[in-house]
Amino acid sequence: MFNIGIGNNKIDYDMDIKGINTLRGLALDMIHDANSGHPGICLGAAPIIYTLFKRHMNIDIDNLDYVNRDRFIFSAGHGVPLLYGVDYLLGLLTIDDLKNLRKIDSKTPGHPEVGVSPLVDASTGPLGQGVANAVGLSLASMYLETKTNNLINYYTYVLCGDGELEEGITYEALSLAGTLKLKRLIVLYDSNNVTLDNNLKVSSHEDIKKRFESINFNVIECERDPRSIDEAIEMAKTSNLPSVIIVKTIIGEYSKNAGSNLVHGKPLDDEDILNVKEKLDLHEAPFTVARDVIEDFKEYVIERCREVTNSFNEKYEKMEDKTLIDKLINKDITYNLTDFNIDYQDKSLRDLSGEILNEVASNFPLLIGGSADLSSSCKTNLVNEKVFGEDSFDGRNIYFGIREHAMAGIMNGMALAGLRPFGSTFLTFSDYMRGSIRMSAMMNLGVIYIFTHDSITVGEDGPTHEPIEQLASLELIPNLKVYRPFDFNELVASYIDILKNNNPSCLVLPRDNKQISEYTKTSKVKDGMYLVLDTDSSDYINLIANGEELGLAIEVSKSLKELGIDSKVYSALCMKNIHPGLKQKIQNEKTIAITLGSPNYYYELTSNVIGMETFGKSGSKTEVLEYFGYTIKDITDKVLEIINK
Amino acid sequence: MFNIGIGNNKIDYDMDIKGINTLRGLALDMIHDANSGHPGICLGAAPIIYTLFKRHMNIDIDNLDYVNRDRFIFSAGHGVPLLYGVDYLLGLLTIDDLKNLRKIDSKTPGHPEVGVSPLVDASTGPLGQGVANAVGLSLASMYLETKTNNLINYYTYVLCGDGELEEGITYEALSLAGTLKLKRLIVLYDSNNVTLDNNLKVSSHEDIKKRFESINFNVIECERDPRSIDEAIEMAKTSNLPSVIIVKTIIGEYSKNAGSNLVHGKPLDDEDILNVKEKLDLHEAPFTVARDVIEDFKEYVIERCREVTNSFNEKYEKMEDKTLIDKLINKDITYNLTDFNIDYQDKSLRDLSGEILNEVASNFPLLIGGSADLSSSCKTNLVNEKVFGEDSFDGRNIYFGIREHAMAGIMNGMALAGLRPFGSTFLTFSDYMRGSIRMSAMMNLGVIYIFTHDSITVGEDGPTHEPIEQLASLELIPNLKVYRPFDFNELVASYIDILKNNNPSCLVLPRDNKQISEYTKTSKVKDGMYLVLDTDSSDYINLIANGEELGLAIEVSKSLKELGIDSKVYSALCMKNIHPGLKQKIQNEKTIAITLGSPNYYYELTSNVIGMETFGKSGSKTEVLEYFGYTIKDITDKVLEIINK
Repeated sequence: MFNIGIGNNKIDYDMDIKGINTLRGLALDMIHDANSGHPGICLGAAPIIYTLFKRHMNIDIDNLDYVNRDRFIFSAGHGVPLLYGVDYLLGLLTIDDLKNLRKIDSKTPGHPEVGVSPLVDASTGPLGQGVANAVGLSLASMYLETKTNNLINYYTYVLCGDGELEEGITYEALSLAGTLKLKRLIVLYDSNNVTLDNNLKVSSHEDIKKRFESINFNVIECERDPRSIDEAIEMAKTSNLPSVIIVKTIIGEYSKNAGSNLVHGKPLDDEDILNVKEKLDLHEAPFTVARDVIEDFKEYVIERCREVTNSFNEKYEKMEDKTLIDKLINKDITYNLTDFNIDYQDKSLRDLSGEILNEVASNFPLLIGGSADLSSSCKTNLVNEKVFGEDSFDGRNIYFGIREHAMAGIMNGMALAGLRPFGSTFLTFSDYMRGSIRMSAMMNLGVIYIFTHDSITVGEDGPTHEPIEQLASLELIPNLKVYRPFDFNELVASYIDILKNNNPSCLVLPRDNKQISEYTKTSKVKDGMYLVLDTDSSDYINLIANGEELGLAIEVSKSLKELGIDSKVYSALCMKNIHPGLKQKIQNEKTIAITLGSPNYYYELTSNVIGMETFGKSGSKTEVLEYFGYTIKDITDKVLEIINK
Repeated sequence: MFNIGIGNNKIDYDMDIKGINTLRGLALDMIHDANSGHPGICLGAAPIIYTLFKRHMNIDIDNLDYVNRDRFIFSAGHGVPLLYGVDYLLGLLTIDDLKNLRKIDSKTPGHPEVGVSPLVDASTGPLGQGVANAVGLSLASMYLETKTNNLINYYTYVLCGDGELEEGITYEALSLAGTLKLKRLIVLYDSNNVTLDNNLKVSSHEDIKKRFESINFNVIECERDPRSIDEAIEMAKTSNLPSVIIVKTIIGEYSKNAGSNLVHGKPLDDEDILNVKEKLDLHEAPFTVARDVIEDFKEYVIERCREVTNSFNEKYEKMEDKTLIDKLINKDITYNLTDFNIDYQDKSLRDLSGEILNEVASNFPLLIGGSADLSSSCKTNLVNEKVFGEDSFDGRNIYFGIREHAMAGIMNGMALAGLRPFGSTFLTFSDYMRGSIRMSAMMNLGVIYIFTHDSITVGEDGPTHEPIEQLASLELIPNLKVYRPFDFNELVASYIDILKNNNPSCLVLPRDNKQISEYTKTSKVKDGMYLVLDTDSSDYINLIANGEELGLAIEVSKSLKELGIDSKVYSALCMKNIHPGLKQKIQNEKTIAITLGSPNYYYELTSNVIGMETFGKSGSKTEVLEYFGYTIKDITDKVLEIINK
């Protein structure tokens, strides 16, 4: 037998049932008032949420940011009214908050939003993302344990449903968790055999137990009963592997449509609400909660957690070196990149990026990352650091595998834990990660994406490997800064800007550009766009480019000069940093942009863009550039054509 | 024992070994000449490719488009030199073609490109895509079997490596294949335990056999020997489930770096090439192939396939109704949408879309599709058709599960088989599918993407469910047409344009817009942008919008009129259809665009765009629109501000 709760004598089963039904009733009331929401999961998964928070989640309700708190990710985020109910029982939200479910500017939005509601550890909603976040949070806890003398050792719980296990990102992330033996990850699988559209069997015929065993998980099955769930979580905590707890539930339990997809996504009608509440023994007016339920729940949680936080505080006080832990507490993920000693002659930009990354890593323990199996191409290996894994949780090189989407979702989780993660792949494969990159931006997480092989200059591997629309497409994501430096000066400046800020960023680098310019300036890069090559003439055109094309633009400018045409050349290496005034100036002047990617990237600045309207071709870099007209002569001709039109 | 080849007496094992080594030698020569490529897989997987094509692939080398040919997808596309070697043995490519590997405009690009090289059934390269394509091809064969009196019944083979099984899309697609029991799908798993960066164990600790069993696959293990592979394929063909054949291979076998990631992605040095060739008993000059190898291979394949194609031709001649099969043979996937009888009053655009889709389906058997678990929201259920599945392969409603990426990759496969597939989800989740949408565009496949819930008007579900950048981001993909109609007239016109063409397209629809305008015109939609509201005045501004915002633009125009400002209103419902002349005209006039999405969508036409620069909010539709200033008054004010600046 396993120890249940603080002590078996304290368990009051009837009170637990009453509490669970209270969460169910509150959720129905919230969804009814909002006239929008998902009653099915709220009725079905209430025992899981209640038991987890009452008996297991280590939190500090007086300090919700408590750095070693257990994390809970509501990956099936549409069930969030249950969590708002827990917030209410703990005095963290009011009844008015609950009544404002899904209303504008409330503390109770339709899906969990980190920073908006108490006890929300990640914004979730797009299915599968939360599972990857949870893997990242648990990975971070294993790493931080090694760096904080075992002070950080929280559990990460994640609730997911049937549909989420169909998502590829979930599979990718959990397979990595099993490989790395992230033993403090506990997946609570709300198994009700129904998805929005139909019964699960129409779209999935999986042996879930076997599937999890095949990816190295500890598999536990339990009933939809607080004692069974409690016992299962206790068992999971003793495992050396990550655990999944398969809880057999009934979607919309007690509703007339219980067990059917009809109860998934629409509020119950009034009659059905009464019917459910009758079965749940809830006879009061809507939003009325019995005082004993609140008292029992809150006191139990506070008492259970007090010992844990006290113990943490004692250990913290005794720590000699508090540098790292204080950074975590203060949520400081910035780094001031100043001194470094790198010989930058005759090296490709991605090689130089690797050298800078290594320099930074040696002084900045929050920096940890890896690649989706392209570290040797993206040059993101930390040469003095170990591989992160079961034998070395202090390793800082993560082999994510060829799992781009999960890599990004896991990095989001690592960033939520206070780390500064980086991940790398080829730019064209950023397409696989967009679901998670968007979440980096929405949660404003300091994730660093390093994308190399950034244009048709990839050459031989052909159109599937040659990005066209990816640069413009990443630039579209709100709150995501995209840097595309030309040479070492601009690369350093990009790293400085990225590391001193805490927002998500993409560093976009070519396969093999080794150019260095006397014109580029490290100090100007923070302005996003700056003048690289000036002219004395008052009659001039502007040429704009970034990355590898800047070299071409400079050559074209010289070629135009020979034809008697003066031009200024601007480097536009970070569009989101550009001052509106400068944008306006450029818009009002005769400006031509040159890009190896989609022309749309520059349309905000000018409608005169020389860019790619088709996919690329397989061939050597030189062949491909010639084929698409990216020679000095061809571009000069195109510029003349635009000027004369 | 299983029957091997045509008859056991015909098997010449020594000749097979010689043939396999010939493919290896040719691949090394090609990669050496290209000075670029992937020798590891070519040395390791040669026995698989050789055995498959010699003994199993039913093809017609005089008619490569033979409609019932077996399909082979080289999902680990970097191994394509092996296939080019097969092409050479069959007389489909010349030695000069092989020498042009990875050179511009050759028939031998770096990754397989459909339409460029013989025997390539899908363009592959981004890992995992080919596996999903194969699932789509085998799904299509099951469907077409029911529609062609069993005439179509080809097998689909797909070769994938360790890395690909890490990709989420692979897992998603194969799980669906297992659910649907696609028995004519045979996965050839080149299991060498190495990925680009490292040994597989660093990133994956999966029990692959168990994993495939858990998703309802028939699992076969075999040796890297032509007899063993042959026998395994024979076994797979007898299964009622899809099969995976786990072939234990050695990456870069015979190289000094055999079994290591060092041999994955760089040409072998000259000494190592000599060393390998010595071991393979290849002593001739590069690109020299023994005549008996060619004769044996080609004659065997021709003889083996003749009977099959003859039998097909006999059955074809006897068919009474050749309409469908002739459409497949002629690759005609278009449909002329003319007559239909739909009452469009007071229905949401997505409901109307569903009605049109049903109308089309009733007359167009090539149309088959479904949803990533949102058919009830996207209204893509074909009400008179069955669910596609093991009991009804004539079903035309596919429950893809919550597997957006695989849905798109599977649709690509279905389109490659000659079907006209549609798939649906919310617009925001198009992010999950970009890897495959790009491949729809690159291969020019007539896939129809139906994306609903297309803006912040989604409301209550909040920012994760509210697309901002997705419309602009899809528009960036070359060769992909994106339609965003305002009302029934424009919706019909969009369907007409989509169905009469054969390129990929996205239909983007709101959650609940029911507006109908007297100004919209079905006939003008093919122009991409057209004048909806004109003015007599010669002093005017242009307002541009599409989708739900067009209604707002019309109201704002009226409001401006009251203030003495004349305006023309344009509907820009398909950007890629707009005539350059019209673009130019709009660019030269005072133009303001209004969008609920990213302003970048319109920057090509004007730098004056009223759009969303941030993510959305959770709240009712009305609350959200007010919050972000999308009222007639606020937009009118913003327009005035732009005019007066």
